[in-house]
Amino acid sequence: MDNIITPTPKVTTGPLPASGKVYVTPDSAPDLRVPLREIELSAPSEPRVRVYDTTGPYTDSSVTIDVRQGLARTRRAWVLERGGVEEYDGRPIQAIDNGNVKSSVLQPFPNTPRPLRGVGAVPITQFEWARAGVITKEMIYVAERENLGRKVALDLAKERLADGESFGAALPEFITPEFVRQEVAMGRAIIPANINHGELEPMAIGRNFLVKINANIGNSAVSSSMEEEVEKMVWAIRWGADTVMDLSTGRNIHDTREWIVRNSPVPIGTVPIYQALEKVGGDPTKLSWEVYRDTLIEQCEQGVDYFTIHAGVRLAHVPLTAKRLTGIVSRGGSMMAQWCLTEHRESFLYEHFGDICDIMRKYDVSFSLGDGLRPGCNADANDAAQFAELETLGELTKIAWDKGCQVMIEGPGHVPMHKIKANMDKQLRECGEAPFYTLGPLVTDIAPGYDHITSGIGAAMIGWFGTAMLCYVTPKEHLGLPDRDDVKVGVITYKIAAHAADLAKGHPAARLRDDALSKARFEFRWKDQFNLSLDPATAEKFHDETMPKEAHKTAHFCSMCGPKFCSMRITQDIRDYAKKGMDEMSAKFKAGGNALYVPDKAAD
Amino acid sequence: MDNIITPTPKVTTGPLPASGKVYVTPDSAPDLRVPLREIELSAPSEPRVRVYDTTGPYTDSSVTIDVRQGLARTRRAWVLERGGVEEYDGRPIQAIDNGNVKSSVLQPFPNTPRPLRGVGAVPITQFEWARAGVITKEMIYVAERENLGRKVALDLAKERLADGESFGAALPEFITPEFVRQEVAMGRAIIPANINHGELEPMAIGRNFLVKINANIGNSAVSSSMEEEVEKMVWAIRWGADTVMDLSTGRNIHDTREWIVRNSPVPIGTVPIYQALEKVGGDPTKLSWEVYRDTLIEQCEQGVDYFTIHAGVRLAHVPLTAKRLTGIVSRGGSMMAQWCLTEHRESFLYEHFGDICDIMRKYDVSFSLGDGLRPGCNADANDAAQFAELETLGELTKIAWDKGCQVMIEGPGHVPMHKIKANMDKQLRECGEAPFYTLGPLVTDIAPGYDHITSGIGAAMIGWFGTAMLCYVTPKEHLGLPDRDDVKVGVITYKIAAHAADLAKGHPAARLRDDALSKARFEFRWKDQFNLSLDPATAEKFHDETMPKEAHKTAHFCSMCGPKFCSMRITQDIRDYAKKGMDEMSAKFKAGGNALYVPDKAAD
Repeated sequence: MDNIITPTPKVTTGPLPASGKVYVTPDSAPDLRVPLREIELSAPSEPRVRVYDTTGPYTDSSVTIDVRQGLARTRRAWVLERGGVEEYDGRPIQAIDNGNVKSSVLQPFPNTPRPLRGVGAVPITQFEWARAGVITKEMIYVAERENLGRKVALDLAKERLADGESFGAALPEFITPEFVRQEVAMGRAIIPANINHGELEPMAIGRNFLVKINANIGNSAVSSSMEEEVEKMVWAIRWGADTVMDLSTGRNIHDTREWIVRNSPVPIGTVPIYQALEKVGGDPTKLSWEVYRDTLIEQCEQGVDYFTIHAGVRLAHVPLTAKRLTGIVSRGGSMMAQWCLTEHRESFLYEHFGDICDIMRKYDVSFSLGDGLRPGCNADANDAAQFAELETLGELTKIAWDKGCQVMIEGPGHVPMHKIKANMDKQLRECGEAPFYTLGPLVTDIAPGYDHITSGIGAAMIGWFGTAMLCYVTPKEHLGLPDRDDVKVGVITYKIAAHAADLAKGHPAARLRDDALSKARFEFRWKDQFNLSLDPATAEKFHDETMPKEAHKTAHFCSMCGPKFCSMRITQDIRDYAKKGMDEMSAKFKAGGNALYVPDKAAD
Repeated sequence: MDNIITPTPKVTTGPLPASGKVYVTPDSAPDLRVPLREIELSAPSEPRVRVYDTTGPYTDSSVTIDVRQGLARTRRAWVLERGGVEEYDGRPIQAIDNGNVKSSVLQPFPNTPRPLRGVGAVPITQFEWARAGVITKEMIYVAERENLGRKVALDLAKERLADGESFGAALPEFITPEFVRQEVAMGRAIIPANINHGELEPMAIGRNFLVKINANIGNSAVSSSMEEEVEKMVWAIRWGADTVMDLSTGRNIHDTREWIVRNSPVPIGTVPIYQALEKVGGDPTKLSWEVYRDTLIEQCEQGVDYFTIHAGVRLAHVPLTAKRLTGIVSRGGSMMAQWCLTEHRESFLYEHFGDICDIMRKYDVSFSLGDGLRPGCNADANDAAQFAELETLGELTKIAWDKGCQVMIEGPGHVPMHKIKANMDKQLRECGEAPFYTLGPLVTDIAPGYDHITSGIGAAMIGWFGTAMLCYVTPKEHLGLPDRDDVKVGVITYKIAAHAADLAKGHPAARLRDDALSKARFEFRWKDQFNLSLDPATAEKFHDETMPKEAHKTAHFCSMCGPKFCSMRITQDIRDYAKKGMDEMSAKFKAGGNALYVPDKAAD
């Protein structure tokens, strides 16, 4: 083992521009410290703007980050104090868990905790606690986090900002812990929070909360290294990813996941069948319940917060895909389809669904019921295969709830605009309002290289209609593996989609940030405009390409109109005019006392 | 004058990858040659895919481009043969037309034609011809161009591809010249086509045609040169801009426009008040009907195809903006607002609207009635000022129609998703279904640097709802002047939005390209997938970053799953299975004869 290399990967730390980390302590749980980001503005009269903060301790200057130790496991105490769990030795790590690579290339995480699991029939999952009428610390945390102190901000705004169309969602003026409990108890929201993910800062996924986004990371057989994956996670949450899915399929797969979970303040999702496939040498027909079960337990013990499980791909559904233009495009879905075809029997995931629930309940791993038959192109959208699977997912949702598990439902994919709402409506109907979690959807197939945009359009719309979490798509979709820049562009695009959806749904406080930025824009507070934006560095860089001089940061004009004439300034004149009356102002303007147009010395 | 520099600017020429220029001759007009682009696929069994072609002769290898001569003025003969026009000397060019710059820095276009104008009461505009029951060559051209030979393609597809929701638009299965005439006669479509723009390849803007996009180019007081502007136009149409607006406001403004029009196969739009303002030294309060009228005639003679005219900014509307978060953000709108305030009288554009119509009719310049009071942020969307102006635009539309002019209406701006449809519905109602031409709208204000995306979401939606043309927004919006890359990204983003809208409206042939690309993707014809995309070079580059080897261009896998397992191949098995029956195939799979999973030699 002396060849083991355990470097400390460099990850990105430090606050975003003009931003400070603030921790709020909820009244009902004085030991909680709920993080949020506060953006300071240059105008002393303007209140700081609080925004949702997914970045974890990485943006807290007072925290020393050591990725070899992982983040503090604050939440473990909450789990232990609730009781009903036991610490135990856990499943021994086997060579096959890491793809049978030589031990010399293994990079085990040096500070792995002993796992916990639920014992007996007392509540374990957030769903069970909620149904038992108990408000957990996770629920209190989530309530505070979603509110962002919006009561104070809305009082300052002195008007109701929201006037959206919610399509049946019921967003409250303020989020209380009891509201969170009710939503979780009804299955309308989940708090993905494996009891073994002590590093987690809990968050909620549900259509009566802020719309969330997921970023996928992961190596593949072709490229990528483990250290890059940890930084990818940190990088993705820095720009706003609410959860991260580790879709690794190559070597060191167990260890990579361990490094990611131990360093992640956001929920981590996986697709366990990818690792199960590795364990059977990559032959889908060799998959079995036994190897799948073993993989579930392995990942439950590591602290994965939600699993994509393609239990809706039933034998009877497979022939429905025969006439599709692009067949089955989900990796997990096609594995199960091939298994069903070859074995000529029902999917073992479907047949063992109750057993899967029993395992996941013990660790409070949430279901993300996979859409293995999602359409791979616009031509296949909303077809019989897709909707047959969705109906099965509805059936499985009820089973999982009966077993005490939290559930969300995955959705497409490739769907033209006019077919998007039917997806949302059917999902709500079939799945009893369990949260929907969609990939895009892409509204056209003709723009590879720009599929963050083709899918961002669909994501904004389906988010508006009620989807609780949007899985990002990067510019490299269909073409290659995303690099650092692609991940950032994908996350920012999806933050746009999610925020646009919040605005359109009528989220009571979403517009605060838009209004603060628009006011800064109108008052030519350039730095504030940059700092309030989703990507301050890019906004500032774009500005500087045209007007690099530092003086232009405070200039009362922009490069579109130039220094000679500025349309925005006229409003001040109009306001004066409204106050002082038309005649007086008319005389004043004619006298030239407040000309908008001044000689352009800079340009001469 | 011996210091005059008249270089031949380099512009981008040559076909797009795997693409050929095809000219179609309509039955009813054998002298017309209607261009389209045909993409060749690598599979011999796959038919070539015809796509709409905005690129003009620049992508025709058989045409020699000389920007000092301009494009061939083919269309001038069509205008002359219809009659009712006279050639005349035209208004002499004055120093003030080019901002009074020294003659040594002037770059006059060396091959300017003598202008034409309509005489008498015979029809001049496409609207007048259409109302007189006459199908013009422009209408025949447009019909052929919109059809793209879709009868043949749809016969090949052997199924009806369209199932959209058109919100009252009535897209015919095939476009006939008579259909174009009817749409133009009803004012539901325009063919912006100044009789002095002989270089034009006519196109239609209307909600029963393909959704179009506009790209803005232009210098400003801060930067840019004339030569760059010509190439910007060529570059914008290369990626799909259907019209180009020249928003130049600096020096050499007359000459820049001349170079652009003489080299442009697409309609050119302008905002004449920008130049009028230059002529009065930049002081909006010095604007007058006389200087504005002079500017209109100057630009009519040059061949500008449509004018943005902010005649809807009435004195009474101005106070409605006083309580806005961002006031008036349109340059033209704020100029007129200041003029009205200062003069304390009604806008001269409104008062002289009939005179403006009389001038524009003589040259068949189309109106683009400007939305000078469009919202500059989400908070101001759909407010009293915006809608009061829209009502006035409806009133002006009817006047312009009575005067024989073609009209479209400009729209916002910044609008959250739930307020977009109200804009479209009100525009159709107030403006008698005249084509709507919107800027975005941006669905959130928080993403400067990504406003092509925030606005692309709104553009796709409003295009679906019925907007006929979408004005692009580049990533530099609100921050700086777009460079070459920004223009391309803006155009591609808007092609996505427009095409997504066509699909959702149920355009009978829009999905042909999606399906061809999806089929290529499914069959791992990588080159075809690139070539069918909106941006072949970027798609190929992204692919090559992960899998650079030439062999990977034909690889039956992609970098997402790697060579070991490919989800797409299973469908072939499923198809076999559907044909041969379950038992036989099950036996075959078990025998391992068609394993999807093969040892990954490349990765070992």
